[in-house]
Order: sequence, then structure tokens, then C-alpha cells
Amino acid sequence: VISSAEKPRAHLTVKKQDLSPLVGDQLPVLQWEHERGLAFTRNNLNYTNNALVIPVAGDYYVYSQVTFQGPVPNDKLASVTQIITKVTDSYPEPTQLLTATKTLGEMKANWFQPVYLGAVLSMEEGDRIMVNVSDIQWVDYTKEYKTFFGAFLL
Amino acid sequence: VISSAEKPRAHLTVKKQDLSPLVGDQLPVLQWEHERGLAFTRNNLNYTNNALVIPVAGDYYVYSQVTFQGPVPNDKLASVTQIITKVTDSYPEPTQLLTATKTLGEMKANWFQPVYLGAVLSMEEGDRIMVNVSDIQWVDYTKEYKTFFGAFLL
Amino acid sequence: VISSAEKPRAHLTVKKQDLSPLVGDQLPVLQWEHERGLAFTRNNLNYTNNALVIPVAGDYYVYSQVTFQGPVPNDKLASVTQIITKVTDSYPEPTQLLTATKTLGEMKANWFQPVYLGAVLSMEEGDRIMVNVSDIQWVDYTKEYKTFFGAFLL
Ligand SMILES: [Mg+2]
Repeated sequence: VISSAEKPRAHLTVKKQDLSPLVGDQLPVLQWEHERGLAFTRNNLNYTNNALVIPVAGDYYVYSQVTFQGPVPNDKLASVTQIITKVTDSYPEPTQLLTATKTLGEMKANWFQPVYLGAVLSMEEGDRIMVNVSDIQWVDYTKEYKTFFGAFLL
Repeated sequence: VISSAEKPRAHLTVKKQDLSPLVGDQLPVLQWEHERGLAFTRNNLNYTNNALVIPVAGDYYVYSQVTFQGPVPNDKLASVTQIITKVTDSYPEPTQLLTATKTLGEMKANWFQPVYLGAVLSMEEGDRIMVNVSDIQWVDYTKEYKTFFGAFLL
Repeated sequence: VISSAEKPRAHLTVKKQDLSPLVGDQLPVLQWEHERGLAFTRNNLNYTNNALVIPVAGDYYVYSQVTFQGPVPNDKLASVTQIITKVTDSYPEPTQLLTATKTLGEMKANWFQPVYLGAVLSMEEGDRIMVNVSDIQWVDYTKEYKTFFGAFLL
């Protein structure tokens, strides 16, 4: 039995993104600050390669908020998407755990749009969780309190 | 005292809905997958009759996300509503616990709109919690990661 | 070690707001119901001066939902903002912990817009957390299930 004070948990905050080349048709993955300001990792829920690595099997509440921003859309189907994804050693393809897709609607000026996702997910030791977005250039990375990602073992 | 590993918790995911006739002026209730894919129920937080049944009194974090989608609205007041409702043996009427109502605004094309709700609620043994929506035909039931409902004992 | 049943937690619900004069350029702070209906405070997470006062250091999940509503915007840059703020004795300025800012887009009628925020925050004993909004007259205070604020020690 793990006591509350020993449970894995983390809260990561947005930072300026390296716009690294994309691989195949994958959506871009967000990079995170893990130790400064409001960000922390605790009890072996470590941050490596843009992902939180699950240290012990169990049920975790996993959440993220991405604040999107952009110019007037030139496409009436314009949308933003945020995905919490899992990668595991036993299966080659990333798995979508939680997804929010939102059309922008009519905008006559620059827009801001925060999108929150959160749920309980059953995880195995070694699973890696990350956040993908439809367009990294629309992510507001200016403030740690606008875009963030975290998890805690229940 | 209940240890963490023994605490009631569940995560349910959307499935294709039976469009059953509505009773009176009640909003439609969503039906859920409770054991396949990402869905699970654990430690007696069971799924029966479209509801999670609280097995032990206490404070629960309860959440749901519904992804709504639809065609161009023909009404400038068009909106979507999601409600987490409680039914209890000691009181005949359903009680609204958490509600999100959102007007759609101007849309010139098909739209998608995820809506998340979550909060701590104090529950009694036998309470039943469910999710109601304004219009079941606008719920995106195609993917388990887009529309979901869960709870965990704190 | 604190057992689950002894952990600080609270769920506050909206009530009619006193429109008190603002101090300097601060955003208005919301006032809350803390003991009637769905609202409660437990295990020393008390409500004082519009804030929850942290009784014991630790990691808390903190959340709020504000339902905004208003008339047709007369400004194409119109937006709503919700901020979870911390005030601490050791530092004179309020700190933004979590923020959601959302432009309204094109609306041809009265609008409703729920905005949810939630994340894990590392808190010290005596820290005070509250919810600020961009415009208190746009907050829907009519129903306890539409606008709420809470926290629980992990
Ligand atoms: Mg939570």
C-alpha cells in the first residue's frame, strides 16, 4: 500500500516549443517545463522525451489544458484538436486516451480558446503519456498558467 | 478506513445510443460502455440502468465530457446542454449536480464542441448518477476518447 | 499520515454577488456559498473572505467552473476570463495559478459559455485561493450547479 505522500504525481507547464520536424502523419507533441515555477514531478512520475513515464501500475487522473490562439480563420471548417496519447512498449502504435476537437466558428478578430481534458485512466508501469495538438503554432506558450499537463495516482 | 487500491472508481465511454422514447419532459440520458477498451468499473462502483450506483457514502470527484457535433444551426439561439444528475431513493425528483449550457454562436459549417464538467460531490450509499444531454442526436458516439463519464472516491 | 476521511476538501457554489467597489486594477473576485445545498467545507479547508484557506501543506487538485452569459457583444474582441489566484503571507502580490481566456466570436443573440479550470497545485499552509473573473456582471449566479469552485488534498 502506497501512502498519499508517496504517490506519483506531476504538474507540467508550457514553455517555448522547439519546432522540430514532424515524423510521418503524426500530430506534433508538446514539450513541457517540469521543475520551475508551478511545475513539479514527485515520487518517480518523471518527465522524459516530452512524456510522463508511469512508475507504478494503477488508476491515474490525467488532465491537460491547452490555450489555443490564432488569427482570423480563412477556412470555415477551421478547428483545434488536443489529444492525450499513450505509448507503451507492448504495442507499437500510440493510443488516443482523451481527445477534444473544436471548430472555431465565425471570428472577425484574433481569437483565444482554452480546451481542458481530464479523466481516470488505468495505466501500466512504463506507459508514457504525452499531449498532441493539431497545430503547435497556435498554442499559447507565453504563460505557465494558460497551458499545462498533469497526472496523479488515485 | 478504505485503502487507495480498494476505493470505488469507474471510467465509462460512449457507445452507440438506443434512441428510446423519452418520458415526459426529461432530457435524454446517455448510455455507456463499462468494460471494454478504456472503460472499467472497480470496487463496487457498478454501472446499472445507465447510471453509476454509489456503493459507499463519501466525497467523489465526478466528471464527464460530451463531444457534441451538428449541422449549421438554423436558430441563432441554438445551444447544447450537458447535466450530471443524481437520483436517490429518499427523494422522487432527479437533482442537477453539475450543468454546462453553451450557445453555439455563428457557424457556417458542421461544428464540433467538447464540453467538460467535473467537481467534488458528497454522495450517499445507493445514490445513482447519470449524464443527461439536450439532444442525443448531437452526441459524438464514434470514439471512446471523445465522450466519457467517470467518478472516484476521494 | 492523514487518512482519506480526514483530508481537507471543499466544494463551493455560486451565490448572488455583492458588487463591491474594485481596488486598483484588480479583477473582481467571486463570492461563494460554502454550506448550503451542494456546498460544503471539510477537515479545516475553510472559507473566509472569498477564499479557501489551505490548512496543511501538500498537493491539491483545485478546480472551478464559471458560466458566463451576456448580450450580443458590441466589440469583435470581446472575451471572458477566469483566473484561480493564490495569495500568500510571504509574497505581497497575488499569483495566477490557472487561467482561461476565451474570445466570444460572432454572436447574434444572448450567449452562455461555461469555462472549466482544474489542475494539481502544490500549496503551503496559510495560502489563500480564490477565483477572479473579467466581468462579474456576466457571471451566471442563478444556479448552484452552473458556477462552482473546489479543492481537495491528494
Ligand atoms: Mg480530479
